[in-house]
Amino acid sequence: MTVYNYLSFLTDYGLEDGFVAACHGTAARIAPDARVIDITHLVQPGDVRRGAAVLAQTVGYLPPAVHVAVVDPGVGTARRAVAVAAGESILVGPDNGLLSWAISALGGADLAIQLTNGDLWLHPVSATFHGRDIFMPVAAHLAAGTDLASAGEEISVTDLVALPAPTSRLHDGEAEGEVMSVDRFGNVQLSIPAADVGRLGIGIGSPVIVRCGRRRLTVPYLDTFAAGAPGEIVAFTDSAGLISLAINAGDAAQQLGLPPGAHVRLSQAHAG
Amino acid sequence: MTVYNYLSFLTDYGLEDGFVAACHGTAARIAPDARVIDITHLVQPGDVRRGAAVLAQTVGYLPPAVHVAVVDPGVGTARRAVAVAAGESILVGPDNGLLSWAISALGGADLAIQLTNGDLWLHPVSATFHGRDIFMPVAAHLAAGTDLASAGEEISVTDLVALPAPTSRLHDGEAEGEVMSVDRFGNVQLSIPAADVGRLGIGIGSPVIVRCGRRRLTVPYLDTFAAGAPGEIVAFTDSAGLISLAINAGDAAQQLGLPPGAHVRLSQAHAG
Amino acid sequence: MTVYNYLSFLTDYGLEDGFVAACHGTAARIAPDARVIDITHLVQPGDVRRGAAVLAQTVGYLPPAVHVAVVDPGVGTARRAVAVAAGESILVGPDNGLLSWAISALGGADLAIQLTNGDLWLHPVSATFHGRDIFMPVAAHLAAGTDLASAGEEISVTDLVALPAPTSRLHDGEAEGEVMSVDRFGNVQLSIPAADVGRLGIGIGSPVIVRCGRRRLTVPYLDTFAAGAPGEIVAFTDSAGLISLAINAGDAAQQLGLPPGAHVRLSQAHAG
Repeated sequence: MTVYNYLSFLTDYGLEDGFVAACHGTAARIAPDARVIDITHLVQPGDVRRGAAVLAQTVGYLPPAVHVAVVDPGVGTARRAVAVAAGESILVGPDNGLLSWAISALGGADLAIQLTNGDLWLHPVSATFHGRDIFMPVAAHLAAGTDLASAGEEISVTDLVALPAPTSRLHDGEAEGEVMSVDRFGNVQLSIPAADVGRLGIGIGSPVIVRCGRRRLTVPYLDTFAAGAPGEIVAFTDSAGLISLAINAGDAAQQLGLPPGAHVRLSQAHAG
Repeated sequence: MTVYNYLSFLTDYGLEDGFVAACHGTAARIAPDARVIDITHLVQPGDVRRGAAVLAQTVGYLPPAVHVAVVDPGVGTARRAVAVAAGESILVGPDNGLLSWAISALGGADLAIQLTNGDLWLHPVSATFHGRDIFMPVAAHLAAGTDLASAGEEISVTDLVALPAPTSRLHDGEAEGEVMSVDRFGNVQLSIPAADVGRLGIGIGSPVIVRCGRRRLTVPYLDTFAAGAPGEIVAFTDSAGLISLAINAGDAAQQLGLPPGAHVRLSQAHAG
Repeated sequence: MTVYNYLSFLTDYGLEDGFVAACHGTAARIAPDARVIDITHLVQPGDVRRGAAVLAQTVGYLPPAVHVAVVDPGVGTARRAVAVAAGESILVGPDNGLLSWAISALGGADLAIQLTNGDLWLHPVSATFHGRDIFMPVAAHLAAGTDLASAGEEISVTDLVALPAPTSRLHDGEAEGEVMSVDRFGNVQLSIPAADVGRLGIGIGSPVIVRCGRRRLTVPYLDTFAAGAPGEIVAFTDSAGLISLAINAGDAAQQLGLPPGAHVRLSQAHAG
């Protein structure tokens, strides 16, 4: 019997209602010894891709846990509810791609179960609040030692819905990618790994050409945004190992007009 | 001696200051073994009715606890501070109606104590932060096993301030109610129980006429908002058992212009 | 060996990303028995002074803990990382003044260590996320019993960066100060202790003259803002023992146009 001391919890429920607390309470009643680590509840409503990105970039820093994620615009429709073993953890949520990047980050899926065992649910099950009525109760039972296989029927891990990986490729001397996310500081995280920039021969301290839409600018590639002059746009390797654009004490996303998904290319700046 | 493993906490303190943490710290010093489940701290400042609604819709999903709620525009004035036993829990807060709907949700008040025993408070008591200085310390002492009766003087449970129940009635073939709340998704929760709509002979899949102000629209009554076409307004039974209006992937409250308190009537749509 | 049961955590990381959770997870892996009390994560990005004020006004209400604070616009640059023993607690963060007012609130620094022992860090250390990679891991090790001295090299406590104390002085029958902070309710907290107002001979119930910029108004000095008439501006002693200006059921900061740092003078209103 595997017992988990931790649940993690990511949703788009917001913090203004009692939704998150109802889930915490449900967990506490079923698995009183498990602690809940909230990842975020401020994913934009229905933004599965954003939820997937935050989850994937965070799970590696959490202890082994049952990770519950609910960004579920299809709640109450035919989309499946699943629990997936990956690494030392289990992920629980809707099978809409939300879990897919985190599954990869944890080393891939070892076992996938469609949640069909209603004995583990909270009844009556509402049509719209499966976080409270299905996902969290199942996760709490799993944390308390219930065997994963008993949560439902095994499905093939290759049948799990997966979000397409963010674009990222190297060609013709350019690293091409897209905006993964914009954080609270206005830092623009690209889907371009720092290693790719290295392969282009761009080292710390070198200038790098950034192309986005019709714009083309040359910025320094620095250790950290704080090494830039105030107001200066810089590229740096962020805490996830990806290239990010930032302005020391400013909002790069706003100044560059770069929303998530925007296409960006980086290349080496040559002497003219 | 009854010991509670959980405190719950709902306020309008917001998350930008250290107010909530000062209360958590106060609880930790008095009742180190009790865990705090935060319900929300983003009730609009002074909105007692909203706080009461969130509390009442959440407490049923929490384990037995000392529930602390502080939305207290009259702090420092003559309003009473109370602790009320209801069901397996105790509620602590100002006697301004904030607790009243939750007391009903928990089965009614068994005992009400006006908080007058200053031995349980944090001194010096400020005039404006009774969450930190009175409500949370008293709640933590109760959680740690202090007898409720020792917190002050018994008052009649019928003397507790109660908010008027939200309007909801059936007459002339209409279910009449008001907007209880608008959640993060823009879903409009009405004070009309799903059972009332059933009594009007409206079943899942049927159209329902919604009247609000001068507007009159016919919407489908579906299992869940996600069953609606994108952009379509639908009625559904929400996770609290109440009729809600929503737009799949949209903001119904904004589109319908329906704030909390707005009057709404539902009736069966007949063939013309 | 000193073990701490609590960590506290204050940052400007916001709640929309997974940053706070990555730190919680890091703490849980190193010090599974320590609980984290979140103070706030909504300090405005880079606002060291605001972070310092919230931390200083909160730590006194927390149990003995390792207090981790990260508002760190200079992350990745030459600013030092430190851990400071004060009272029964340890504070961990960047040496940029953020900790200084809290150190004073806890009775002054007993020992200061520059964090240079990389054995306590999470590797690889990113250039921009020292909360996850340095501050929280060190704090968690300290909470779990690692000796403070082993975290790095002792530095003189007098070398710690300290923010200038907020202006506050009494002269010519006036109490002069500045706006410390504006809370969620729009209450304007001044750097003027209630005791100073008492020294001016202004008692509860008396009128007080408030001068800010070119404005001059006379307001009552009351027990609490709730004692004011709706819409009336009042002065009162807030929960930190400082004079605050508020409007019962209104937003004083907005109405008075008083941002943090604004200069304010108070004096006794005499009969004309």
